[in-house]
Amino acid sequence: MNRDLEITGKQLISGIWSASGEARFDAYCPESGKRLDPRFTEATDEEVDRAVEAAHAAFILSTSIGSEVRASFLDALAQSLHEHSGVLVDRCISETGYGIARAKGELIRTIGQTRHFASILREGSWVEAKIDLSDRQREPIARPDVRSMLKPLGTVGVIGASNFPFAISVVGTDTVAALASGCGVVVKAHPAHPGTCELLAEIMRRTLQEFDLPPGLFSLVQGRSHRVGERLVNHPSLRALAFTGSEQGGRALCRLAAERDEPIPVFAEMGSVNPVVVLPEAAQCKGDTIADGFLNSLLLAGGQFCTNPGILLVPSTDAGDQLVQRIKTGIEQSPIQTMLHRGISEAYEQGVAQRTAITTSERYQSKQASDAACRAVPAVLVMDACDLKKENLGEIFGPFSILVRWRSLEDLLGVIQKLSGQLTATIHAMDEEWMQWEVLFSELQLKVGRLLMNGFPTGVEPNHAMHHGGPFPAASLPHFTSIGMGSIKRFVRPVCYQDIPNAMLPAELRDENSEGVMRLVDGVLTRESIG
Amino acid sequence: MNRDLEITGKQLISGIWSASGEARFDAYCPESGKRLDPRFTEATDEEVDRAVEAAHAAFILSTSIGSEVRASFLDALAQSLHEHSGVLVDRCISETGYGIARAKGELIRTIGQTRHFASILREGSWVEAKIDLSDRQREPIARPDVRSMLKPLGTVGVIGASNFPFAISVVGTDTVAALASGCGVVVKAHPAHPGTCELLAEIMRRTLQEFDLPPGLFSLVQGRSHRVGERLVNHPSLRALAFTGSEQGGRALCRLAAERDEPIPVFAEMGSVNPVVVLPEAAQCKGDTIADGFLNSLLLAGGQFCTNPGILLVPSTDAGDQLVQRIKTGIEQSPIQTMLHRGISEAYEQGVAQRTAITTSERYQSKQASDAACRAVPAVLVMDACDLKKENLGEIFGPFSILVRWRSLEDLLGVIQKLSGQLTATIHAMDEEWMQWEVLFSELQLKVGRLLMNGFPTGVEPNHAMHHGGPFPAASLPHFTSIGMGSIKRFVRPVCYQDIPNAMLPAELRDENSEGVMRLVDGVLTRESIG
Repeated sequence: MNRDLEITGKQLISGIWSASGEARFDAYCPESGKRLDPRFTEATDEEVDRAVEAAHAAFILSTSIGSEVRASFLDALAQSLHEHSGVLVDRCISETGYGIARAKGELIRTIGQTRHFASILREGSWVEAKIDLSDRQREPIARPDVRSMLKPLGTVGVIGASNFPFAISVVGTDTVAALASGCGVVVKAHPAHPGTCELLAEIMRRTLQEFDLPPGLFSLVQGRSHRVGERLVNHPSLRALAFTGSEQGGRALCRLAAERDEPIPVFAEMGSVNPVVVLPEAAQCKGDTIADGFLNSLLLAGGQFCTNPGILLVPSTDAGDQLVQRIKTGIEQSPIQTMLHRGISEAYEQGVAQRTAITTSERYQSKQASDAACRAVPAVLVMDACDLKKENLGEIFGPFSILVRWRSLEDLLGVIQKLSGQLTATIHAMDEEWMQWEVLFSELQLKVGRLLMNGFPTGVEPNHAMHHGGPFPAASLPHFTSIGMGSIKRFVRPVCYQDIPNAMLPAELRDENSEGVMRLVDGVLTRESIG
Repeated sequence: MNRDLEITGKQLISGIWSASGEARFDAYCPESGKRLDPRFTEATDEEVDRAVEAAHAAFILSTSIGSEVRASFLDALAQSLHEHSGVLVDRCISETGYGIARAKGELIRTIGQTRHFASILREGSWVEAKIDLSDRQREPIARPDVRSMLKPLGTVGVIGASNFPFAISVVGTDTVAALASGCGVVVKAHPAHPGTCELLAEIMRRTLQEFDLPPGLFSLVQGRSHRVGERLVNHPSLRALAFTGSEQGGRALCRLAAERDEPIPVFAEMGSVNPVVVLPEAAQCKGDTIADGFLNSLLLAGGQFCTNPGILLVPSTDAGDQLVQRIKTGIEQSPIQTMLHRGISEAYEQGVAQRTAITTSERYQSKQASDAACRAVPAVLVMDACDLKKENLGEIFGPFSILVRWRSLEDLLGVIQKLSGQLTATIHAMDEEWMQWEVLFSELQLKVGRLLMNGFPTGVEPNHAMHHGGPFPAASLPHFTSIGMGSIKRFVRPVCYQDIPNAMLPAELRDENSEGVMRLVDGVLTRESIG
């Protein structure tokens, strides 16, 4: 069964590997700078169109496929990812420069979340079945029988992220949530790890085949140029797009989608600076622990996380001085980081230089050396809260943070006011210390998708309660999460059935409730059948 | 208590009636064409800004107000609307030309849905509380405690609809859902019924005062020019916009919102043609009933409904001929309709003329007479399915429909394929007849928000299961409904709390679950407390 996986440099269009185009591009090892075999062929416009049309046709073909089949398919996909861990992790490491623990850990998370989606399909209540029964005697007109539940949107485009080659890519949350909901999917691979993407796509192809599911449900297109993604967004049969990346990229995709003849939603997760506030008693009692935790979070995977802590707000106290001193020392001793690709390491260097130039601040940075082709020097700026401007607060992707010294609640509220929407904010406080700072807590809540206490924002749990999103530009639509089980809600819409015969309804809405899902019947949540 | 309500022609800005501008406009009686007193003053840019800023401040002030207070406030609002029914209905009739039954019926629905929102606040489970408990022993890193629930977005703008002066206006679903969720609201009144809007705003003002709630939670701005709405959409503190109206208007608002520095979601419900398909046995067995029901639905309130049946697909059979004949006779005998305002009646006349010109069809229309200033002649076109073009399928707002004669399933599928997103589609079929037409059912599902059987699409029940929306252009975002209890979901977003002390959490997320709401705890729906 486990035939070896091979990388060919092609697109997967509805179950068939295809390379009809002329344009080629290469994958590189960010550590050595060396070109990796094979060369990749960019998808042609015609290949992109074919992928979307196949996904649309497959989606319609598969509307009658039940939850149990989709759940078993996801379980088999998870199992196959597990069985191919070795080859996947090897290729991932060579394309990303990630350490083995980072790469393995991400694959394990990806396998876990795929199984988790299977479990919510089996439980079934996620479809939000609602039933309002009829009242034929009502005056002046009879009340109809009205039922609704969530149904798949159609074909979803996924633009893979650079920094999560497993968890937010070909078999990541976007793809798996969309397939779980019943949508067809076309993934645009990130050009920095096209080989990893191809391996994952082949696993997907084999698993669809094994379950006799339409191969069009999943296609993979490759490309370094924006043309490929643009063609995808503009295809009239596309119904939604998921994207994780830069604010600039997200804004461009949102604009394209809005200009379509029939606009479609873009679920863009665009990152943020994730402020971390240290309160005075916490600095006093556990400053070293906070400093070490912060450095660890900042440097994790080269700081290439949307949830990287880009600002640390440290009180202007003696304990705060010591905390800052410990971070300075730590950053000087920290290793130079290998970045995912040349574009990121160049943008990082420019960003840090620019930030330093516009700011009244001191810069501290790593004093270590590295031979990596794509590298970033970990750095922090230290400045006073009163010197912090709104233009200092954009995200710099990589191991960089601003340590802001604050004197008063007004200082803190002033910084919060300057922040745009954030994925996260964190408060470090001792027991009961937070009670004196409630206004800080409530102000931060208005700006963020997730509020943490005494932790660090990196490490996003893909569970039920997770919300990875927030006000713009953390996410393009604040209602939706891009990680966790709630992310499936992006790819479905309510469909309502009025006076439809019982036998014609989806199983979840029939009187007998044979699936036993939780339903809202005349306003009451119940698993009971009707009548 | 019930001091008389007076109309002054001003804006309500945070509890104070204001008219600092120069621009004036008038309300007219569409029946007589006469100007109605008083003159109205358009809101200035400064007044709009003040309204949004007051709403934002009031929203922040009121975040700690509990569900019970908000529910009691909504009940009191409903009660006050009931007590002022007489004056509200009178003014509504003179501004809209609606009959007393239509006006009264809409007010009763509005009062009912306001109480319905109060009841979901009291029950509490609508906030989608989710809890994933911690596991401090997990390897390689501890699992945090993660909890989330829906929280209000902030300040919501509402652009009132022309055709529902009570149910989709100052105290309509948009406003009430937004206030129920905890948002502040600024309503832009529809300029065709500004007096009705002012009366409703005064009732809102008094009720907020009675409950000692911040007056900034609700403001009303008046204006005939687009400037007022544009100023509202562009205010940086606005967090979402709700709109019900034309596709052109909705597209323009979506574009404005997307071009903001921080884009915001626009929930635009833009109407559709709502196809009604008659199957052969149904035409045979109950053709007369269908014809009469169709005419009634088509002519209701001058056909000025988003759910007006704009296409009737009739089989090319003898029974189908009779059905069409009965509609022809009915339409010739039907009264000329009084329309809401001159703009609608002019657009209607142009639309029908244009549609007739581009189409190989026969036109039948009312032969009656009317003195109404703003009127529309009910009309139907009859044509073959093969002559129907995509450009015939835009909405014409008013008592107009196309009767399409079809011969085969292919004819029907061809028509469906040409349709863009629809609020509704309806099938008329005899018992078991639908089983032979399942493909029709499944194709229609892909295009619509609501599918009906043996009914008519007008008459939208504002209940839990209702979905009034659909793929673009029925709605700008297919995930959300603009009518019914689900409409509250537009104005909230998940906020996630990680390792936050129990006492600091919102009541719905605390271990003890004192509100007894349904929560998803480690993936299991339960009302139990934790620990």
